[in-house]
Amino acid sequence: MRQIEILDSSLRDGAQAEGIFYSLEDKLRIAYALDRIGIGYIEAGNPASNPKDMELFRRVSDNPFQNAKLVAFGATRRPDISAEKDPGCAALAAAGTDYVSIFGKSWDLHVSQVLNTSLPENLQMIRDTVSYFTRMGRTVFFDAEHFFDGYRNNPAYAVQTIQAAEEAGAARIILCDTNGGSFPEEIAAVIKAVRGICTAPLGIHCHNDMGCAVAASLMAAEAGCQQIQGTFLGYGERCGNANLSAIIPTLQLKKKYRCIPGALLPELTHTARYIAEIANYIIPASLPYVGKSAFSHKGGMHVDGVQKLRKSFEHIDPEAVGNRRNLLVSEMAGRTAILNRIMRVDPSVTKFSPITEQIIAKIKELEYHGYQFETALASVDVLIYKELGRMKEYFTLRHFKIIGEQSTEEGGQLASALIKIQVGDQEEITAAEGAGPVHALDRAMRKALEVFYPSLAKVRLIDYKVRVMTPEAATAAAVRVLIESTDGENVWTTVGASPDIIEASWKALVDSIEYKLLKDDQKG
Amino acid sequence: MRQIEILDSSLRDGAQAEGIFYSLEDKLRIAYALDRIGIGYIEAGNPASNPKDMELFRRVSDNPFQNAKLVAFGATRRPDISAEKDPGCAALAAAGTDYVSIFGKSWDLHVSQVLNTSLPENLQMIRDTVSYFTRMGRTVFFDAEHFFDGYRNNPAYAVQTIQAAEEAGAARIILCDTNGGSFPEEIAAVIKAVRGICTAPLGIHCHNDMGCAVAASLMAAEAGCQQIQGTFLGYGERCGNANLSAIIPTLQLKKKYRCIPGALLPELTHTARYIAEIANYIIPASLPYVGKSAFSHKGGMHVDGVQKLRKSFEHIDPEAVGNRRNLLVSEMAGRTAILNRIMRVDPSVTKFSPITEQIIAKIKELEYHGYQFETALASVDVLIYKELGRMKEYFTLRHFKIIGEQSTEEGGQLASALIKIQVGDQEEITAAEGAGPVHALDRAMRKALEVFYPSLAKVRLIDYKVRVMTPEAATAAAVRVLIESTDGENVWTTVGASPDIIEASWKALVDSIEYKLLKDDQKG
Repeated sequence: MRQIEILDSSLRDGAQAEGIFYSLEDKLRIAYALDRIGIGYIEAGNPASNPKDMELFRRVSDNPFQNAKLVAFGATRRPDISAEKDPGCAALAAAGTDYVSIFGKSWDLHVSQVLNTSLPENLQMIRDTVSYFTRMGRTVFFDAEHFFDGYRNNPAYAVQTIQAAEEAGAARIILCDTNGGSFPEEIAAVIKAVRGICTAPLGIHCHNDMGCAVAASLMAAEAGCQQIQGTFLGYGERCGNANLSAIIPTLQLKKKYRCIPGALLPELTHTARYIAEIANYIIPASLPYVGKSAFSHKGGMHVDGVQKLRKSFEHIDPEAVGNRRNLLVSEMAGRTAILNRIMRVDPSVTKFSPITEQIIAKIKELEYHGYQFETALASVDVLIYKELGRMKEYFTLRHFKIIGEQSTEEGGQLASALIKIQVGDQEEITAAEGAGPVHALDRAMRKALEVFYPSLAKVRLIDYKVRVMTPEAATAAAVRVLIESTDGENVWTTVGASPDIIEASWKALVDSIEYKLLKDDQKG
Repeated sequence: MRQIEILDSSLRDGAQAEGIFYSLEDKLRIAYALDRIGIGYIEAGNPASNPKDMELFRRVSDNPFQNAKLVAFGATRRPDISAEKDPGCAALAAAGTDYVSIFGKSWDLHVSQVLNTSLPENLQMIRDTVSYFTRMGRTVFFDAEHFFDGYRNNPAYAVQTIQAAEEAGAARIILCDTNGGSFPEEIAAVIKAVRGICTAPLGIHCHNDMGCAVAASLMAAEAGCQQIQGTFLGYGERCGNANLSAIIPTLQLKKKYRCIPGALLPELTHTARYIAEIANYIIPASLPYVGKSAFSHKGGMHVDGVQKLRKSFEHIDPEAVGNRRNLLVSEMAGRTAILNRIMRVDPSVTKFSPITEQIIAKIKELEYHGYQFETALASVDVLIYKELGRMKEYFTLRHFKIIGEQSTEEGGQLASALIKIQVGDQEEITAAEGAGPVHALDRAMRKALEVFYPSLAKVRLIDYKVRVMTPEAATAAAVRVLIESTDGENVWTTVGASPDIIEASWKALVDSIEYKLLKDDQKG
């Protein structure tokens, strides 16, 4: 079993994608998710161009990864200055990581027309920068930018650039198809030509401008590359980077290469969806292995075939990557997972019980209206308790009213909420203000309910996500709200959907409160 | 220049995609769009399994294509019946097309375990069905289903199936990677092995379950296939089919093969977006060649590089496929992109003008408050016009009030908005209801403004996106709203941010309206 090193650049090259905009906390959550699934190298940022990344490196060094190596990214020194005095090199050194990626130019045209320097000076910049970091004890990956374009235009010079990096101590030579315009078989042929020249192991970094980044990366591994770089979901500048969530299972299940620990492969789909949620990125339904439709069968013959013989229309078992089969004609999906959750509440229920059918029908109806239960398991549990008749009526909403006012454009917005609830035969009416209508409603509801349930004072919302669906209808589109709550001990997620964001938020808030009260009761 | 035949199956295999549902009119509109861009063969449906398709074939024969050949699709006869008596063959014959695709089984395992018949009987089914149609004067494309899986498992038998089709008169032998699980280099090697055995020209039909369908199709063409099958946007069952909008420009611009008339290549992006519009399919922004982000540059160095030398970060000229370059305005891209936009309004401004500093400072301040301008270029332009003192005051907000009410949990939410605006010395007060507070506000504002600016009646919102930032603060988090608007001619994007979703939406709506009025004034 051959080991392939995976370097994920979702946080660096992925941040170049149109529409991707991470906060520091987003980056940390994605980094630890990549670490959990066993990614070998996480290229987390470019400290010279983004000062926020410096804080990221500090936070990770306070709380180190279990498996992954943290990599900081930067350029070779500028033409007019020594590496010691170059501010970019200084920022990269200050990031304090054991591993650094240094990119340098391998295309002669870029050296003369973009960098505006001479070919020999570019070689010296590569040598100086790589040796500056190796002398400091860092492990250097040299990213040979535009290597394949350079090799096409001036092969001798392209090879000199990687030889310069290797002589200066680079531990890996990464061949980059920066523009994504090289053919997979061309990439494989160049790797075979180059691998005899380099002694350092080679890596590959592909972009998807012709739709070939995954194939080119797979062929590069076969041609001898030891490291594959990409982003977990394939997003990146322009048409994106090589999609690691396709490359990893293909190599691992079909070529018997080891990219991540085999036992973690079933976490692939979950990890992909978790990262997408944090990045506010919508995974295309057809994305290989992890997309919602990756194992969906619609045609009658295919549905029939796959039931007779799994591999008749599936190239792998969906469970191997944590995904699941969807039979779109005779819908059977999700049944087992839901049954398992029902049986945790009432072990006497079987898949033949009428209540099972009833709960599944209810979930399907809500999904049709925009709910998504994949991550909102607390809402699933609340629904199961209610359908089983095991949910106490903790409170009833009598009435709420939201008022938003704005007097002038500069005058700011004032939102207030008035709420009346009933618990047993007691009523409570109160009001609160907030930054926006949902915030005001959330505050007013808690204020009213804490009178009866003091344990709610400990609950706080730690995440609030809004997703607009069917955007064709614009501001009348349906809205899905996901709320993550904690009481300091547990964390749970609930969901609500409606054409109205306030109603969607209200539903998710109510589920969150009911879930907390249910769990309190179960404790005694 | 080698000619490659393109067969588009958007209407047949594409209809197997989860979420794709065509009406008859949709199918016709897509078919004529494919014809207009010069696609050679349009596989339009399966008359045996979908009676609606029969009407489609009749409509096309009434109004024939300019360039394309219409192809109907069907299966080999059933095991227990002659081709003459098989109802599927009868339906296919009745479609009346000169070209038919007949699919048959090439994987022995499928013959015995899914079809439940003998290996010799399957060969006879292929022979009988192909010769039934050739005797009728039809040109037959034989789709060898699961050919590569079959060849892996029992190469002698797989070859016999295509020989049977060829002996019975098939004009093309299409090798199908039905499960999408074969490697591109494996596909190329099998084609090279088979092409000496067949005299009929070969074709390739790939699925994208490993993310390699485009690469495999390109390599198949190089290995000798004369026909490439796929769907124009790549959608199809599971992970989709080979994406023709990537294959066609790659072969045509980089390999000098001819797939469609060269003069029509700049229609590629428009055709892709037209088909997506009809199919109600959202093109991923990163789709090669035709996606919105396919030529978007965000990193400062890339924005700088591409302005010095186009091909420094673009593998082809975007105009060759009718797409365009976007230089994204963001924290990372810096001043060059912003200066370019300022200079479009006032060419006398330079990077040293104080106004440049002032505009950049304003953008940075707004970014700090959660704005993000990289896609919202209409908001950037509105800001530039305002800072340059070139923006007319089209209207002033006097006051708005939002009221949201909910009487019981089941009772539903009612949102209404009251608004008062001033234009010159005239005031207008009005109100509207909507699904949610933002929808109500949007409606009320348009209603008030249309009194003064009738051209706003043509404006409609086509996308509305909400992003919650710094979610740690939960429902009090800042909200960013992105709005995409159209007047039927142009499309523009605006942004607003605030802790309050209503205020954020209001700001994006105002920018959208102001941008439209500004453009109207510039036209005359």
